[in-house]
Amino acid sequence: MFRLKQKLILGSRSPRRKQIFDMLGLEFTCKAPQYSEDMSCDHQKTEIVELPEFFAIQKSLSLSANNKSALVISYDTIVLIENRALGKPESPEDALRMLQLLNGKRHQVITGVALTTDNRIISSGKETTEVTFSRVKPWILKEYASSKEPADKAGSYAIQGRGALLVKKICGCYYNVMGAPIQLTLNMLEPYFYNITK
Amino acid sequence: MFRLKQKLILGSRSPRRKQIFDMLGLEFTCKAPQYSEDMSCDHQKTEIVELPEFFAIQKSLSLSANNKSALVISYDTIVLIENRALGKPESPEDALRMLQLLNGKRHQVITGVALTTDNRIISSGKETTEVTFSRVKPWILKEYASSKEPADKAGSYAIQGRGALLVKKICGCYYNVMGAPIQLTLNMLEPYFYNITK
Repeated sequence: MFRLKQKLILGSRSPRRKQIFDMLGLEFTCKAPQYSEDMSCDHQKTEIVELPEFFAIQKSLSLSANNKSALVISYDTIVLIENRALGKPESPEDALRMLQLLNGKRHQVITGVALTTDNRIISSGKETTEVTFSRVKPWILKEYASSKEPADKAGSYAIQGRGALLVKKICGCYYNVMGAPIQLTLNMLEPYFYNITK
Repeated sequence: MFRLKQKLILGSRSPRRKQIFDMLGLEFTCKAPQYSEDMSCDHQKTEIVELPEFFAIQKSLSLSANNKSALVISYDTIVLIENRALGKPESPEDALRMLQLLNGKRHQVITGVALTTDNRIISSGKETTEVTFSRVKPWILKEYASSKEPADKAGSYAIQGRGALLVKKICGCYYNVMGAPIQLTLNMLEPYFYNITK
């Protein structure tokens, strides 16, 4: 459906983002960015809500220098509650701690997006989705925390998996919670679609 | 994760609802209800927003009489825009007409749920999710309408498929748009879970 004028690289290790791109019918190849988010380094001057866009830009640029004339799009997602960012859990106990923090409350999922080419930023932005957790019984949280699912997920849950049972409602883009906001992605890529004038 | 004290039957023909039940880890069997929604018959006295719950009850009761001591849960979903209900499209042209109506606007997806056993209603209810469509270019609507995806979907789009490119934001339960609201389902089944006291 969307044919692109330039080769598109999805600069991400996430199988969920690949799944979203496949679902939309985009033609792309997937490459792992040569950059790792480091939440512990000297980002104190950067507002926490700005970090996903900053990290997305770094990831995208890490690939576009060595992939001449290709479009490179990258993402970074954080879960934000009470002005604290939750990353991926280090253990099932860590996952349980995060889930207890999220339980019965509203949080934000912020994804930064960056499109680059030839080591140059074309556009970047971020998208926020509000997620409200149901107040879930402790045994359900414990069973979920000790399952395999939370391991590689920011905030320790997967809305597209069994973690859906924790979620009461969302407001915004569902796919943003999975890792890639759809409208923001399409808006950025739109100038490079072939059939836009049809 | 959720073991039930009674046999559970999902009374639905929808592969999406089966997928949601599988995702949640429920133990169930799937049976097609012996009832078809008839939007054209004498429901004039029933408010349109009440129809999904009414249809869900009829679907569930159609199975519980012949499946003694089993819990039967059924659903019915409508897409409501400007107080008109949109059903499944009859043709690609019909799908395009519906998509043009939804384009750039907000609509409601209402799913009715009913839990019955031994020909008796245990509980019923409905859940609403607000969906806002992006203002999408005509060629995208046309290409989507002529694809296979809209055929068996109320409102002519699948939020869990390529139809996601039409959706700007949702407010409420995402899985309700797919056909089965998760929290309402779990709340209804909760008295029948084994490990609820853990």
